[in-house]
Amino acid sequence: MGRRSDARERLLTAADQLFRNRGFLSVGVAELCSEAGVNKGSFYHFFPSKRSLLLEVVEAAWDETGMLRQWEAEPPHRPVDALRSFLEELFAFHYADQEASGRVRGSLLANLSLELAPQDPEVGDKVNELLSREIGAFEALISDALDLGQVSLGSPLHAAQALVGSLHGLLMLARARNDLSVLPDSENELLRLVGVTQPWL
Amino acid sequence: MGRRSDARERLLTAADQLFRNRGFLSVGVAELCSEAGVNKGSFYHFFPSKRSLLLEVVEAAWDETGMLRQWEAEPPHRPVDALRSFLEELFAFHYADQEASGRVRGSLLANLSLELAPQDPEVGDKVNELLSREIGAFEALISDALDLGQVSLGSPLHAAQALVGSLHGLLMLARARNDLSVLPDSENELLRLVGVTQPWL
Repeated sequence: MGRRSDARERLLTAADQLFRNRGFLSVGVAELCSEAGVNKGSFYHFFPSKRSLLLEVVEAAWDETGMLRQWEAEPPHRPVDALRSFLEELFAFHYADQEASGRVRGSLLANLSLELAPQDPEVGDKVNELLSREIGAFEALISDALDLGQVSLGSPLHAAQALVGSLHGLLMLARARNDLSVLPDSENELLRLVGVTQPWL
Repeated sequence: MGRRSDARERLLTAADQLFRNRGFLSVGVAELCSEAGVNKGSFYHFFPSKRSLLLEVVEAAWDETGMLRQWEAEPPHRPVDALRSFLEELFAFHYADQEASGRVRGSLLANLSLELAPQDPEVGDKVNELLSREIGAFEALISDALDLGQVSLGSPLHAAQALVGSLHGLLMLARARNDLSVLPDSENELLRLVGVTQPWL
């Protein structure tokens, strides 16, 4: 057995995997402990409840590519390039996840939002906070691209909402069909949605 | 109490409402019967299981506007107008549903796909069948619009997938936030996604 700090990490990793596979409600604390190789006492030492573990997992899993946090810290100089890189890395993440897990598991945030958000205000608030940050990060980028004349849309907020909706919806579709080929072949289709009229810019 | 055939209808209506409010797993047969004013014997007379009731509810709820079935029966002559009307009616359906139910309940198909599809192959197959029909209906329309020179996209299938993904994703977002204002103000943003370059056509 590793040190205590390993136990905490192992619980987070096990939870991330089990919640992606089967959602939150059908995964129990006993199974989380068994998967992580941790006893129940340790579990409750680190996490007061299964929900508190979930909130931490979602916070960590929210930004799959790590790029949204980067943008929040420092806005990229080339917003359309940044958007394209984000879409490439996001799609690559999901192809790699399918390779590793054997099936298309979609977006943890969207999955949880549909499984839990209406019944569970605490999870609902967290999901909303993260969706708002995601929309905000795109809105800032699209706004910068608008200033540079690279997009032709009037409302960066609406474009950002449409993009976030599309991404999570496409991942829902891919998960339902267990087939990532519903993702666009190129990023240009999604860039068109945010008003990038010349996607090669 | 009404006739037997009323009992069946009442069960379908109660199930549609309860599944939209809370999903499938947390709603029991006793609650369905109580809401519909039907006894358990009648329930099992009409439906061998809660899942068989769900499959019928989803089949009926799939095409909220009734337009997809119309398009399947007879392709519309003005495909871009038909797309715009569809989006208008779909948004109107969800505003009316919010008015009637007091909250944003999203798309039953997407909700169930995330709640059940991975664990329940029978529901998963039904969800996939209906998503495929939805994509197929849009693909045919976009293909016709392409022939008429009203869209500028290479792949009607990809455009249709992107549109279906966007619609369900935006409704997921609206449900998570209990706020329909994430839906686009105009249909043009979504039409742009399918390559309608002159949305006023």
